[in-house]
Amino acid sequence: MDWRNEIIAASERVAGHLRRTPVMTLEIGGGHQPVEVKLEQLQHTGTFKARGAFNSLLANTPPAGGVVAASGGNHGAAVAYAAARLGIKAHIFVPEMAGPSKINLIRRTGAELTVVPGVYADALQAAQAYEAKTGAIQIHAYDSPDTVAGQGTCMAEFENQGLEADTILIAVGGGGLIGGAMAWLQGRRKLVAVEPKTSCALHAALQAGAPVDVEVSGIAANALGARRIGGICYELAQAQGVSSVLVDDTAIAEAQQALWNEARLLVEPAGATALAALRAGAYVPAPDERVAVLICGANPAPDPFD
Amino acid sequence: MDWRNEIIAASERVAGHLRRTPVMTLEIGGGHQPVEVKLEQLQHTGTFKARGAFNSLLANTPPAGGVVAASGGNHGAAVAYAAARLGIKAHIFVPEMAGPSKINLIRRTGAELTVVPGVYADALQAAQAYEAKTGAIQIHAYDSPDTVAGQGTCMAEFENQGLEADTILIAVGGGGLIGGAMAWLQGRRKLVAVEPKTSCALHAALQAGAPVDVEVSGIAANALGARRIGGICYELAQAQGVSSVLVDDTAIAEAQQALWNEARLLVEPAGATALAALRAGAYVPAPDERVAVLICGANPAPDPFD
Repeated sequence: MDWRNEIIAASERVAGHLRRTPVMTLEIGGGHQPVEVKLEQLQHTGTFKARGAFNSLLANTPPAGGVVAASGGNHGAAVAYAAARLGIKAHIFVPEMAGPSKINLIRRTGAELTVVPGVYADALQAAQAYEAKTGAIQIHAYDSPDTVAGQGTCMAEFENQGLEADTILIAVGGGGLIGGAMAWLQGRRKLVAVEPKTSCALHAALQAGAPVDVEVSGIAANALGARRIGGICYELAQAQGVSSVLVDDTAIAEAQQALWNEARLLVEPAGATALAALRAGAYVPAPDERVAVLICGANPAPDPFD
Repeated sequence: MDWRNEIIAASERVAGHLRRTPVMTLEIGGGHQPVEVKLEQLQHTGTFKARGAFNSLLANTPPAGGVVAASGGNHGAAVAYAAARLGIKAHIFVPEMAGPSKINLIRRTGAELTVVPGVYADALQAAQAYEAKTGAIQIHAYDSPDTVAGQGTCMAEFENQGLEADTILIAVGGGGLIGGAMAWLQGRRKLVAVEPKTSCALHAALQAGAPVDVEVSGIAANALGARRIGGICYELAQAQGVSSVLVDDTAIAEAQQALWNEARLLVEPAGATALAALRAGAYVPAPDERVAVLICGANPAPDPFD
């Protein structure tokens, strides 16, 4: 796959539909070195997921049945938003664990919505049944080339904005965002995957030598709780030697609060997970290593205006 | 006063102590035109006030008695933070209306703190008494040249970041931020002052032909509730023909919620006041007029982590 051209094509496709999210430098890594951050949580619907959603909808011609997506909440909101903007019918399946603030976010777009008992994998099963019945196109949350190429536009944009870092830390659930980053960078900079200890599909796959099912729980589970890492992400991580470090919920919550207290960035736990690895010492940069963090999601529960 | 050189000197003085806050473009003005926004609420202590505070402390050599400041909360937090960073003793006077989240913000810096019954003007009186007794230097919240020059670095930075707007909307309390912007721009771009109907010291002064006392109340009063506009701001506004438009609390609250719902920017009412003028139609740009908004404060009550 010629990822670089795929991502350049995706960037052109989604231009005008997405925000160019800002970057800044913060002394928030827990040490003394400043950290470059990209505020991707200011993207439409509060996460990077809008990139993959727009790319997927624009790269294909959806049938009359429209599109269907399964999601822990954020991908569903992104597909619903993009579909509404493009005049495409959308049906979103979310698990109960998405929680009321993410469910409301989807509801406000006007998309059809089904809340399924269980976790993300259960919503995916229901979405696949709907797809088979209606002929709607499935927009996968992380494991399709169009989704990964869309998410790859985030790292392409970060570099275009003057990124200096040697190393970028990225939170991983199903692997769409880091998949896009690996696809774009092709090893030109170091990437570090950060996963919650209680939802670590990439870490488990790299240990097992193949994607395997994991149990998912914890405060970031509705965003990072993929039961199995995406095949695209896994192949890229193995080929590029990307490793995954783990953080516990306490570290995630601490980083989430630090982003608010020190920089007035209100994010959800998944949005603070990559930073948590720096603050809690799960990843310790070399003294001269320049580090960046993708802040990737800001749909917290409770929503401050609910 | 050679404001341009004062502000250039201030920019050099505060470099390394302040964040270069990011800018972005949002379709959030209520119409179809994109709006350039500067996310100055991501500054240290959550507001632009850190600029004036650092400039004031660095431009002078504080005596052994340290510094004293009166504040509705934000200026006090900024002076307390800057003083702590520079190893200077600080005593902050705030009115009760500052509220617990701003009072906690000051307390966390380690500064001495006195909470005074009443509004900002009452805290100022108490701070002046303290100044007379102890010889501490008073750091005025908005009406001193060092404060205004410090706030002026915000607009200088915005231009340096590629600002394209013909017109910039800025919320006004005592006039420090817009004073700095007027001092920097000297009429090169149009400035529009935005004040709450219930705290409109600049509007009242421009109508009366001189600064006059006003009553202050409403949801933004602890940040914008100056009883009388600063003399520096008033002189500049009159000389440059800057006018003030008014918004009510409903419009401010709506803009505050829109910043969160549409862009995941959590701000306090004062931080949304300038945007409210666009969304509520208090200021209607010409069809080809490019508009920018300074987002200036993010210390809301309640604090989402309290």
